[in-house]
Amino acid sequence: MTKILRDEDLNDSGLMAVAIEALEAAFLARAGHRLIAPPRHHVSFGDRGDLVFTIGGILGETPLAGFRVYETFGGADQIVAVWSVDDARLKGIVLGERLGSLRTGAIGGVAIRHLSAPDARSVGILGSGAQARSQLAAAAAVRKLERARVFSPNENRRAAFAEEMERALGLEVVPVGSAREAVDDADIVISATTSRTPVIHAADLKPGVHINTVGPKTRDGYELGLDIADAAAVIATDSPEQTSAYASPFFLAGSGHEHRMADLADIMAGRAGGRGSPEDTTLFCSVGLAGTEVVVASAILDVLGASA
Amino acid sequence: MTKILRDEDLNDSGLMAVAIEALEAAFLARAGHRLIAPPRHHVSFGDRGDLVFTIGGILGETPLAGFRVYETFGGADQIVAVWSVDDARLKGIVLGERLGSLRTGAIGGVAIRHLSAPDARSVGILGSGAQARSQLAAAAAVRKLERARVFSPNENRRAAFAEEMERALGLEVVPVGSAREAVDDADIVISATTSRTPVIHAADLKPGVHINTVGPKTRDGYELGLDIADAAAVIATDSPEQTSAYASPFFLAGSGHEHRMADLADIMAGRAGGRGSPEDTTLFCSVGLAGTEVVVASAILDVLGASA
Repeated sequence: MTKILRDEDLNDSGLMAVAIEALEAAFLARAGHRLIAPPRHHVSFGDRGDLVFTIGGILGETPLAGFRVYETFGGADQIVAVWSVDDARLKGIVLGERLGSLRTGAIGGVAIRHLSAPDARSVGILGSGAQARSQLAAAAAVRKLERARVFSPNENRRAAFAEEMERALGLEVVPVGSAREAVDDADIVISATTSRTPVIHAADLKPGVHINTVGPKTRDGYELGLDIADAAAVIATDSPEQTSAYASPFFLAGSGHEHRMADLADIMAGRAGGRGSPEDTTLFCSVGLAGTEVVVASAILDVLGASA
Repeated sequence: MTKILRDEDLNDSGLMAVAIEALEAAFLARAGHRLIAPPRHHVSFGDRGDLVFTIGGILGETPLAGFRVYETFGGADQIVAVWSVDDARLKGIVLGERLGSLRTGAIGGVAIRHLSAPDARSVGILGSGAQARSQLAAAAAVRKLERARVFSPNENRRAAFAEEMERALGLEVVPVGSAREAVDDADIVISATTSRTPVIHAADLKPGVHINTVGPKTRDGYELGLDIADAAAVIATDSPEQTSAYASPFFLAGSGHEHRMADLADIMAGRAGGRGSPEDTTLFCSVGLAGTEVVVASAILDVLGASA
């Protein structure tokens, strides 16, 4: 019987590691041109909104096909479905918002694994929402973290974030009163805000830092400025083509930096340069590589299907 | 919580009437240009097959949006999902094959309601598969039937069909030894075969008969021939545009009849002529109007959601 998973089935903290390994395989498939990820497909329902489909999968030894669909009518229900191509079987369906958050977190985790200093111990987090949570969980899955500092403008929210994540990850998480204080001595910086103006500056960061930017990054608004791109020895993204497909240009467009932006898949496959020295600043611009929801959903269905 | 229905949830014989009423509303929406049904969207997974999406819905007082997806990897699992647009809520998901069969049956039922003689009492059925079953159930939902005769080449299968449908519909169903015998004095003929050559001829039919053709009808193969189109006073279809979109031309292409083929929605809305006299032969060519799976799924989710 087709397995159906909902948000409440995806609370197991071990699923982040599952999602990260699935993403590793997806990025390697991408480097080998086996990741299927055509452009999004929109269908409009008058002036009420659209259904938006990301259809994709992976070819190779264990081919997968599937899709994610969400709507712009104002709700939050998403559907991700996965078929195992070899036996033409609908493996399952994942409903809700949690898979998308796990997926984006796991993309950040893969970037941190391949770009941050191997001995990174401390994280500075900007933002206290669902994305900040899953990025920190992903960082903790790929590095032996000892401590984190979090800043977000609302004192109650950053305190709640710190308490919850300290308990969830077994790591010291301290709320602090400014963005600068949060990133001050951090080996890894996670920026997961909704800010449309830069929240930190290059001078706030220590040498050798790795930065994930998950929030706004178009010319209409960006949470990190060009000074950080100027300081970065390596700039990478999960999907260079998606950075060119936004309605508003990517924040690096016209800066010269966009031409040296590397595909994370190519860095992983050894086809593009990664971190070269302990002093290098590395910057990862997360855009949400299409087709990866299906790969993560498949891995989670395998794990939860077997234990159910 | 999002409702999930599977084939075994759709066994209630009352659902055909629900599906037919939903289709009535969908055809009227189509006549009023409120049915959203863009062309199918295919995504290929190498040489392994495609995912095929029919995305659509209905605008107006209670707008619906959704999609059906199936694959060509060799399996049979379909997914239909429906959103209520006004409150941006995922109403539910229907899995399996039964919804599609109910939908095609219900389209046939709407055609029979609007084209066959109001006092039609007898049905001749050609074919004994799932489609023949749902077409007969649909006919029984819209006309006061007294008897049916069924022919299909396999004697055991036609006997099983007759026994099962007699019990299910409370109506005399007799298996017979030839197609001609099945349609001989029938007021309604349902052709739901896989035959690529004509199974009956115009001379086999009585005046005033209504015919639904559900099986093959392209130039590559067709279960009914041009002689029946020649005899028909009215030729209708659920989707003139889909009859032009087959890889092989529609069986009427080039015969002259294709130009007088009417849209069933227009007949229902009084914009095209229907049955004019008791002696008229009427022919309905069922192609499976896109977007209607979503409308039927929505109605079924309403009914089963309320009783669950």
